[in-house]
Amino acid sequence: MSFHSMWAELLPIGRSSASGGYRRYAWTGADTECRAWFKAQAEARGLRYEVDRNGNQWAWLGDPGAGDAVVTGSHLDSVPDGGAFDGPLGVVSSFAALDELRARNAELGKPLGIVNFGDEEGARFGLACVGSRLAAGRLTLEQAHRLTDGDGVSLPRAMEAAGHDPEAIGPDPERLARIGAFVELHVEQGRALDLSGDAVGIASAIWPHGRWRFDFRGEANHAGTTRLADRRDPMLPYAETVLAARREARLAGAVATFGKITVEPNGVNAIPSLVRGWLDSRAADQDTLDTVVNAVEQAAREYAATHGVDLGVVRESFTPVVEFDHALRDELARILGSDTDLKVPVLGTGAGHDAGILSGTVPTAMLFVRNPTGVSHSPAEFAAEDDCVAGVLALADVLEGLARR
Amino acid sequence: MSFHSMWAELLPIGRSSASGGYRRYAWTGADTECRAWFKAQAEARGLRYEVDRNGNQWAWLGDPGAGDAVVTGSHLDSVPDGGAFDGPLGVVSSFAALDELRARNAELGKPLGIVNFGDEEGARFGLACVGSRLAAGRLTLEQAHRLTDGDGVSLPRAMEAAGHDPEAIGPDPERLARIGAFVELHVEQGRALDLSGDAVGIASAIWPHGRWRFDFRGEANHAGTTRLADRRDPMLPYAETVLAARREARLAGAVATFGKITVEPNGVNAIPSLVRGWLDSRAADQDTLDTVVNAVEQAAREYAATHGVDLGVVRESFTPVVEFDHALRDELARILGSDTDLKVPVLGTGAGHDAGILSGTVPTAMLFVRNPTGVSHSPAEFAAEDDCVAGVLALADVLEGLARR
Repeated sequence: MSFHSMWAELLPIGRSSASGGYRRYAWTGADTECRAWFKAQAEARGLRYEVDRNGNQWAWLGDPGAGDAVVTGSHLDSVPDGGAFDGPLGVVSSFAALDELRARNAELGKPLGIVNFGDEEGARFGLACVGSRLAAGRLTLEQAHRLTDGDGVSLPRAMEAAGHDPEAIGPDPERLARIGAFVELHVEQGRALDLSGDAVGIASAIWPHGRWRFDFRGEANHAGTTRLADRRDPMLPYAETVLAARREARLAGAVATFGKITVEPNGVNAIPSLVRGWLDSRAADQDTLDTVVNAVEQAAREYAATHGVDLGVVRESFTPVVEFDHALRDELARILGSDTDLKVPVLGTGAGHDAGILSGTVPTAMLFVRNPTGVSHSPAEFAAEDDCVAGVLALADVLEGLARR
Repeated sequence: MSFHSMWAELLPIGRSSASGGYRRYAWTGADTECRAWFKAQAEARGLRYEVDRNGNQWAWLGDPGAGDAVVTGSHLDSVPDGGAFDGPLGVVSSFAALDELRARNAELGKPLGIVNFGDEEGARFGLACVGSRLAAGRLTLEQAHRLTDGDGVSLPRAMEAAGHDPEAIGPDPERLARIGAFVELHVEQGRALDLSGDAVGIASAIWPHGRWRFDFRGEANHAGTTRLADRRDPMLPYAETVLAARREARLAGAVATFGKITVEPNGVNAIPSLVRGWLDSRAADQDTLDTVVNAVEQAAREYAATHGVDLGVVRESFTPVVEFDHALRDELARILGSDTDLKVPVLGTGAGHDAGILSGTVPTAMLFVRNPTGVSHSPAEFAAEDDCVAGVLALADVLEGLARR
């Protein structure tokens, strides 16, 4: 089955006719359909199919028990109203690359695996990369049992309802120990490749990133009768801080976003008592990120003081930089460079991935496929078919190079 | 019963022990208690008590049917977690002023009425001044029947549950025709009297005011991977518009507030697709208000264009200036000025009142009592007892002067 046919089969699953976006949430009907598709692809190719204790799906060419396996894959679930490419491009490309290797009669000295990690986006239970976190022991059983969706359904009950035994979930070190190298192909979620004019790139690192909550507390009052000079309006320092975040990110070559806000009492004729804004910021390295966030916080404190507003800043989450395995990354660059006589760009990314979770346990690398608009997590997410095919060929080259040794 | 005793009786009714603020919403238990207090005050003074078809309470000294009556009063309901003074100060001062007139053995040639208008704040059904609007024919029966509270209870059903016949509601021109002058005493909701050093002032006008909805539409995208240059982030022009509103209001001597906002998708790691902010603006005259709002809208359009964001602006409501009756206002100034040998300040206000509703039908005036902090619609709302007593005496002088003629 060609890349094109596989892609066409997946396209209708879980697509909202209202938004045109995907709603493939973990352990729902759309997810079950995607998983059935994966199993059918494995069986159609005569691959050994297995589901691990955490619900991740695997398809094997050769005996995984032999060890030092080369594994590729990604995920099939989506964010709310997400695009078609984030996740599925990596899974479809994995099967297509295996087909390419068979067509080439490639000599594979090592077992080759394809994986679909469960619940990567975290759209239903609020935590990303649940399948890979559980496998790598980066999520405790206690934490996993506390995860609930918007309707109060827990992760174990949701897994059970979808036909998976929730008693089995937990760390899976033996399964991960069989893997010698993991390579995830993913649509780029920015425009670096579009700007450099390349179809395919190699990941260097996942940027350190975090979220900070800014609580601006002022004084509720009547919007019609309170003199400007008598106000302690927290919306004003919030607005100045939004602009400071953009300015500091631009100066540092980082990104910073205020995308979520809550206001009390949030009435049209009321000066707010509280404006709570969340800053998401990411940068290529820790120092740069610290510089941005410290500058934003300091500016916010000055603005707040000017307006007689109190400010509290809380770091709600933080993920340090994930450097992908340097030897594997250099090997990918060598494989792709020598075949194409082109320098393949190496780029960082601000997004988290299962590959980032696994990188602490197994040598891990990522390939990115050009995204001409950079749009992701949106129905408008796109990659050209030519670039997808270039991604498949690059992945086949990489798998062949790694499995030959 | 003294001002002090009446005030102490009302204080505990509908007060939240959590916030210290009042939750006296129309046709609830707290409102019923306030209304029972009003009736008891009328009866204790041997006044003629009546409830009109719209649930407004009246207490009469003399025969209202004689016409050319002098009426004073205000309201007893509150905003959510409001203060003790907004409304009740006017009602308590009315009874206290009547007591003062009796103590003076004042000669009253006209009937004297005290009124408690129902549902002035609109906290429960979302529309302010429902009792006076219905009486003045400024709210149709159809509109009144469509009003519902947060639990889906309609205004007629709420009135019925509180023991009032909802079939009777509607315009009440004959009752209003009996009134020759209406004077409402109210705590000031700003600091003009505090700044001028006066205990009592006279209202000139209610400022024209309105609310405008600003819809900034950009493009949802990944906050971690989208380059700053590729973003169409509507939070940025929103923030700049918040600051422009403050700047333009300051330049024009007006007020402008962004106190309410909704964001889509409102996710920490998502650049918003939509930021919707509401502008509340008020000024002493129409030209000034137009100048402010036009300048804010023009600035918002420029900011939006800079960020590749679409902007829609909708005027959701607008109330033109309410000029209180000039002859009555001058009469109040004469009465208060000749008694005290002090110039009584005449000031505008940005807040709506029942007096503003009635002013289209009967000659209407307002007295304000000093608010040392300017805070209103908050548990911190305050007026000094000396100033409240000064208000009672001023109101007694005004009623005596108007009823003597």
